[in-house]
Amino acid sequence: MSTLTKETEVAGSISTDILLKQWLGHRNVTRKVIEAFPEDKMFSYSIGGMRTFAELMKELLTLGAPGIRGVVEKTWSPYQETESGFSFSTKNELLELWDKSTEEIKLLWPQISPERFHETDKYFGQWEGRIYWSILYAIDNEIHHRAQAYVYLRSLGIEPPAFWDRS
Amino acid sequence: MSTLTKETEVAGSISTDILLKQWLGHRNVTRKVIEAFPEDKMFSYSIGGMRTFAELMKELLTLGAPGIRGVVEKTWSPYQETESGFSFSTKNELLELWDKSTEEIKLLWPQISPERFHETDKYFGQWEGRIYWSILYAIDNEIHHRAQAYVYLRSLGIEPPAFWDRS
Repeated sequence: MSTLTKETEVAGSISTDILLKQWLGHRNVTRKVIEAFPEDKMFSYSIGGMRTFAELMKELLTLGAPGIRGVVEKTWSPYQETESGFSFSTKNELLELWDKSTEEIKLLWPQISPERFHETDKYFGQWEGRIYWSILYAIDNEIHHRAQAYVYLRSLGIEPPAFWDRS
Repeated sequence: MSTLTKETEVAGSISTDILLKQWLGHRNVTRKVIEAFPEDKMFSYSIGGMRTFAELMKELLTLGAPGIRGVVEKTWSPYQETESGFSFSTKNELLELWDKSTEEIKLLWPQISPERFHETDKYFGQWEGRIYWSILYAIDNEIHHRAQAYVYLRSLGIEPPAFWDRS
């Protein structure tokens, strides 16, 4: 798909093509973290009372493809309802959900009109702001919670994937 | 400074004004994490053999203002040399370095020409890539390591600042 390989260069700005490419690179890293995470710890392991890896990944699934779907369709299901739609009990099921979401994001992204990124809308009918802000929030939130999973992995004696390698 | 309040809206892209505003918002959160971190644990506490909070913050200081200075001046000091220039032994010293860096970034940013963001250069004379990529890397890396500090804080029984509050 051409949208995924081109990088529109606009002086003094980051095109949304580039933004998508950045996100997909981060999604590759997150996928590698899922692969590295021990299945028997996914639903139970925690540090300092934080959520489990499975719970964190559920949040990332919810803010990912369903967010972009809302941006495109301009209708939103509530966050909690959307989140409860993601259900998995094995690592493979989580990986499948992750890959399906990535494909959905790739498919939906080119359907976002250039003007839409600067429109104000309520993400999931709840959080009002510019669309670009909410998308950046979703990406940043993925980096944030994935980094917490890095600490979980380290504390379990497992080396996480390289942060800089987005392939 | 007008550059810091305006948000240039270009359809289908994120202007570098907006990018700076995003980064400054993240730097506010990181500052709050520094404030929350117990001084007696800054240089010693670790999980899973990871670097201490002080070491992680030193990396963020190095990739911050000195990176943008390199982008503007087009000359680079080596990373290790730049990092060793940041020295602190108290939380207040770290906060001062952080604030000084933030001011420097605000001052330097408007001096980056719009075209410069898409030029290829070697960050710190070491890492070749588009300038925008390296700047996004620095921001993402700040989110990444700060999130690890969130886990350190939680494991120490301290509630970290809200991730979504960039004020």
